Amino acid sequence: MDRLKIAILGFGSVGKGLAKIIADKNLGIIITAIADSKSGIIDNKGLNVAKVLRAKKKTGLCGDTSVTPQKIIETAEYDVLVEVTPTNATTGQPALDYIKSALSRGKNVVTSNKGPIALEYKVLQKMADDNDCLLKYEATVCGAIPIIHALQHGLAGNKIKKIYGVFNGTCNYILTRMSDEKLTYKQALLEARELGYAESDPTYDIKGIDAAIKLVILANTVLGFDKTLDDVEITGIDNMSSDAIGLALEDGKTIRLIGEIDAERETLSVAPRILPKNHILVVKDTLNAVTARTDLAGDVTLIGKGAGSFETASAIISDLLYIKENHGGRN
Amino acid sequence: MDRLKIAILGFGSVGKGLAKIIADKNLGIIITAIADSKSGIIDNKGLNVAKVLRAKKKTGLCGDTSVTPQKIIETAEYDVLVEVTPTNATTGQPALDYIKSALSRGKNVVTSNKGPIALEYKVLQKMADDNDCLLKYEATVCGAIPIIHALQHGLAGNKIKKIYGVFNGTCNYILTRMSDEKLTYKQALLEARELGYAESDPTYDIKGIDAAIKLVILANTVLGFDKTLDDVEITGIDNMSSDAIGLALEDGKTIRLIGEIDAERETLSVAPRILPKNHILVVKDTLNAVTARTDLAGDVTLIGKGAGSFETASAIISDLLYIKENHGGRN
Repeated sequence: MDRLKIAILGFGSVGKGLAKIIADKNLGIIITAIADSKSGIIDNKGLNVAKVLRAKKKTGLCGDTSVTPQKIIETAEYDVLVEVTPTNATTGQPALDYIKSALSRGKNVVTSNKGPIALEYKVLQKMADDNDCLLKYEATVCGAIPIIHALQHGLAGNKIKKIYGVFNGTCNYILTRMSDEKLTYKQALLEARELGYAESDPTYDIKGIDAAIKLVILANTVLGFDKTLDDVEITGIDNMSSDAIGLALEDGKTIRLIGEIDAERETLSVAPRILPKNHILVVKDTLNAVTARTDLAGDVTLIGKGAGSFETASAIISDLLYIKENHGGRN
Repeated sequence: MDRLKIAILGFGSVGKGLAKIIADKNLGIIITAIADSKSGIIDNKGLNVAKVLRAKKKTGLCGDTSVTPQKIIETAEYDVLVEVTPTNATTGQPALDYIKSALSRGKNVVTSNKGPIALEYKVLQKMADDNDCLLKYEATVCGAIPIIHALQHGLAGNKIKKIYGVFNGTCNYILTRMSDEKLTYKQALLEARELGYAESDPTYDIKGIDAAIKLVILANTVLGFDKTLDDVEITGIDNMSSDAIGLALEDGKTIRLIGEIDAERETLSVAPRILPKNHILVVKDTLNAVTARTDLAGDVTLIGKGAGSFETASAIISDLLYIKENHGGRN
């Protein structure tokens, strides 16, 4: 296809970041529809992104309140639905219905939304296969790190024995600060909040749930397992004491929250672990780091930013360009 | 295509490792021809790899002396020519002629051979495009690390500002041992030789030429430059003194041989650099580590084994599976 037409559902920081980048870069992608939670706008010839961004800033709406996500899915012209609405990890909604609705119409879907992929990957992938379209979800795990692409394509042919690493930037920031600056857990969390690295309710991150969801996604999408959040043994960092970190430091070590998939035992776990300070996974601040242990390539580690609107947009764009390259004959 | 047919030219450690893995794993790939420097064998229904390996071990030949690489290229049935003969960095021969001969016949080519790609990438890629076939070369840079795939696909849509890192395992081993065990350069080199990490003539590695060739390959293939080895400013580690390392260590730092492409200035360089001990690129022993600095994804770093027969085979297999997936309609 000459130009890839996309419809964006969700116009928060990721949706806005994505729209800006697509408007700025000559990627052969045009945006024909955008919806936020209260309004939407369609122009099948390609939206004026700057204008939509200005309207959103001024009025809080990107378009007309009569243009719903469902209307966009059903009536707009698009090759790919980009689903970037807020995550609901319990129900996956409303994203799950949007994605199903698009796939059932034979439309490709790219999402950054962990809920639907963690909850119903198999169902969604089957819908995509049955309808001869592509479902891509690189942005659901570790932001800017192309980990899913590396595991599915870059290391294709390898047997993956383990996938383990630092999957949550908020926890990693807190542990880095407790270790390097001897802050207490409370002080480090407060600092993380002030810097925007932790949400006002940080439960999801500090209890290890966010990391666990990413493991479920990798296990099901890359390894073909059928896991749910209940299958993950989880210990968060919310009971982490300065004493524990202090003891590790005395021994030349430190502590990081490590998620691990043991592909041979088919077990998933998230827990704080003591690691040598120069361990490859002891990365700083909000970085993520993932090691894949393979039969041929040995250990391959990827390190990068796990969050951020441009970083997430980077993953979404690589998925869009993959679809552009691999689905050209269809539309 | 149902099964991908491949012809392997070169039956040293990489060729043998690749053949073993393809025979062992159910990847949908069969080998229809193999040549070493003195002999060759063709079976268009698929070779018995175990038998060929036994013959090679017993007689030093994989087949009949009348079956030359050129005969295989011209007469065997194959979808992909896998070119893994020894590298000649000055002329690229005889690999360059083999690759051209296959591409001119519309055959896909996968190679681990740095010479031809460093010397004539643009010519070869044009031949591939003109003949509607694929040229893949993941194994030419950093062995098991899927760096080319990550840069071309995983980070697609990003502007790459810099690519820099540890591209030579031999030098990294020597510097690691000089730093950690206070060995002299001579002692560390001797140890590297004894362990098989350095060749009897290590010039190519220790003078930084191997790292420089990898930079040329990345610059031309990923960034679209038109560089040669002469464009790389190179300082090797052969004049590295224990004093220099000692001074770095006193300051909490160490030394690594870093190759860097500055994409904005279009400059390429290889030189020993002083880095903090906990720097992300200070990897141990023979590991390679590469950071890509991008506009959207920020810094993304990949770390893994840069050499080894199975590690190189891993890269070749990922290329073969890419061709199987993306070129299915043609053959």
